[in-house]
Amino acid sequence: MSMESVQSVLGNRVVAAIRSVTGPEPVPLHEPQFRGNEWVYLKECLDSTFVSSVGRFVDRFEAELADYTGARYAVAVVNGTAALHIALKLAGVLADDEVLIPALTFVATANAVTYCGAIPHFVDSAASTMGPDAVKLRDYLVECTEQRAGQCVNRASGRVIRALVPMHVFGHPVDIDGLLAVARDFNLAVVEDAAESLGSFYHGQHTGTFGQMGTLSFNGNKTITTGGGGAILTSNTELARHAKHLTTTAKLPHAWEYRHDEVGYNYRMPNLNAALGCAQIEQLSAMLAAKRELYECYREAFAHVEGIKLISEPEECLSNYWLQALLLDIGLEDERDAILHATNEAGLMTRPVWILLHELASFTSCPRMDLSEAQSLAQRLINIPSSAGLI
Amino acid sequence: MSMESVQSVLGNRVVAAIRSVTGPEPVPLHEPQFRGNEWVYLKECLDSTFVSSVGRFVDRFEAELADYTGARYAVAVVNGTAALHIALKLAGVLADDEVLIPALTFVATANAVTYCGAIPHFVDSAASTMGPDAVKLRDYLVECTEQRAGQCVNRASGRVIRALVPMHVFGHPVDIDGLLAVARDFNLAVVEDAAESLGSFYHGQHTGTFGQMGTLSFNGNKTITTGGGGAILTSNTELARHAKHLTTTAKLPHAWEYRHDEVGYNYRMPNLNAALGCAQIEQLSAMLAAKRELYECYREAFAHVEGIKLISEPEECLSNYWLQALLLDIGLEDERDAILHATNEAGLMTRPVWILLHELASFTSCPRMDLSEAQSLAQRLINIPSSAGLI
Repeated sequence: MSMESVQSVLGNRVVAAIRSVTGPEPVPLHEPQFRGNEWVYLKECLDSTFVSSVGRFVDRFEAELADYTGARYAVAVVNGTAALHIALKLAGVLADDEVLIPALTFVATANAVTYCGAIPHFVDSAASTMGPDAVKLRDYLVECTEQRAGQCVNRASGRVIRALVPMHVFGHPVDIDGLLAVARDFNLAVVEDAAESLGSFYHGQHTGTFGQMGTLSFNGNKTITTGGGGAILTSNTELARHAKHLTTTAKLPHAWEYRHDEVGYNYRMPNLNAALGCAQIEQLSAMLAAKRELYECYREAFAHVEGIKLISEPEECLSNYWLQALLLDIGLEDERDAILHATNEAGLMTRPVWILLHELASFTSCPRMDLSEAQSLAQRLINIPSSAGLI
Repeated sequence: MSMESVQSVLGNRVVAAIRSVTGPEPVPLHEPQFRGNEWVYLKECLDSTFVSSVGRFVDRFEAELADYTGARYAVAVVNGTAALHIALKLAGVLADDEVLIPALTFVATANAVTYCGAIPHFVDSAASTMGPDAVKLRDYLVECTEQRAGQCVNRASGRVIRALVPMHVFGHPVDIDGLLAVARDFNLAVVEDAAESLGSFYHGQHTGTFGQMGTLSFNGNKTITTGGGGAILTSNTELARHAKHLTTTAKLPHAWEYRHDEVGYNYRMPNLNAALGCAQIEQLSAMLAAKRELYECYREAFAHVEGIKLISEPEECLSNYWLQALLLDIGLEDERDAILHATNEAGLMTRPVWILLHELASFTSCPRMDLSEAQSLAQRLINIPSSAGLI
């Protein structure tokens, strides 16, 4: 039997398993769903003429995000990348610092670090969560860093490692307790990249609320969408005030004077987009339930497909199952592309996980630890159709 | 007669003149107007589920902007600040360069320069246009710079002056011919900050299309709005391609692979916001006509208010009259705040021009030429209610 036909056997099995859940029609990887008050709120926005930088939907969306996540404050911004940029800045990340981020994440995590003039420093993943491996990270920091005046210094580069960014891959919570302990022991600020994990809880507490700050995304492919949007979560009053200030051009309040007291950013979320967010968040629980049900269906469908495991939420965690993912058994790495071809050709949109960031031209020279687990995961992960509206 | 009563006399006259145009009700400085297909297009957006990074309204809005302005390409982005950031980057602005920008502009112009790691270098205004004074700038550059290997070097700082950013204040075109000649003679790239001047033409050609690139804003206070939004205009195919690439995370096209070939930005305009833009641009001509009519009404109303001149479009230019502005006669600088108080207390929203940028804490140490004209203008300018829907 040729390699090609072996591959298509598994590809065909995956196509059949997905179709057993989604039906015979073509399906996208993820699409939003507007079944609530989207229409009403957008109309209200137009009728009031408050579509832009000021308006009641921004305040309301922020209050609802805070309420849902349990953070004391949420600051709505233009997208998740902007949220991360400002959160890192407020965490004290300076030019020429290093920031520990997973190699296995969307490029925005690394880009936000570079916007601060800092350098990404790549961390390996834990097989159990796909997020940063706390045990391996601790060993690495013991070996490669030293504390100088309360700062963690990378011995090889001489640079300060300022912060750690846990990222909850596909919505599955990382080992927060382990990572918080590492951060505490090595004097690192923690900013959680919770772009993918709205609705995901670790030991009953919402992701993005463990670090000094956390960030969310409401891009069109996320669990709920504002068209484009993001938010910074924090329970620190001063950080929340400063985040709002920096993301709204750092203008001091005054009836007519335009005085800005630092270099600010035009990162506010327009009221139009927040209106969509207010309608979407009303449906969040229903969407999460639908995504969990989709997971159960896939679990049944893939139970007997040998060589493939459906990714489940980590222990003591509740995942939002933002993107459903298959993991090929070790040794089947070469099947990945055949499965991607078979499914996409069948109209079932699938994709591999992101190319590991240290393999992108912009980041090849950045410092990194051994990334063998991330490399293994990257060769074996496949996302499959995940919309809440699928079933 | 006491100082205070002198001041309120002029303040009361301004209140009366504005009210003679706008009527007795309170009026904001500028509010958008939604009288076209806004509703239809937003609904189409929701129904299609394409609210985010991809969608037909983004392409259509870009095509219509290009068509209207006469630029070959328009790249829609998340706001005017983002547009300027990317345009400066593509114009070759590097860390530690200097960029010539007016002291009399909104803070975003200077912020965008700092996002590139570069340093704003402040230029004085011409009384005739409120934009950069080409004659004075030429004299200054002759005196303070030298050419080294085809680059303009600031003798005092030793830094390269890479670019010049003309900004069309309140929509009134700058002396483009004069500034283009200076840029040519001193080897400066030209990026036009046309945030305020959609619908403004210089010698029959649209502002923002003279430099290598120009930038627009569609913030809620602008002539047309997308909630939040902006665009980069250029007629250079490679710059347009690169602008689109950089503003969409620099991802290479591929069915499923996430490969980014440089550090990119999440600056794309969501389709939801572009939908609003498509509806708004259909009404642009009508709004411009209404703004011109408002100008005519104000001209009549202020014709006999001694000591105050209503700002008119420069010669051979067609202004969009985005913000109507009064200019106090020299010697009446002390009246400004009394007029601001009188009008705002009467419910007529007015404001002075921005605080000159070299007076903001972030920029006090930046290089600058003599700014006496900008200082004089800043003490004497007052914006008055300017919405297209006012009359």
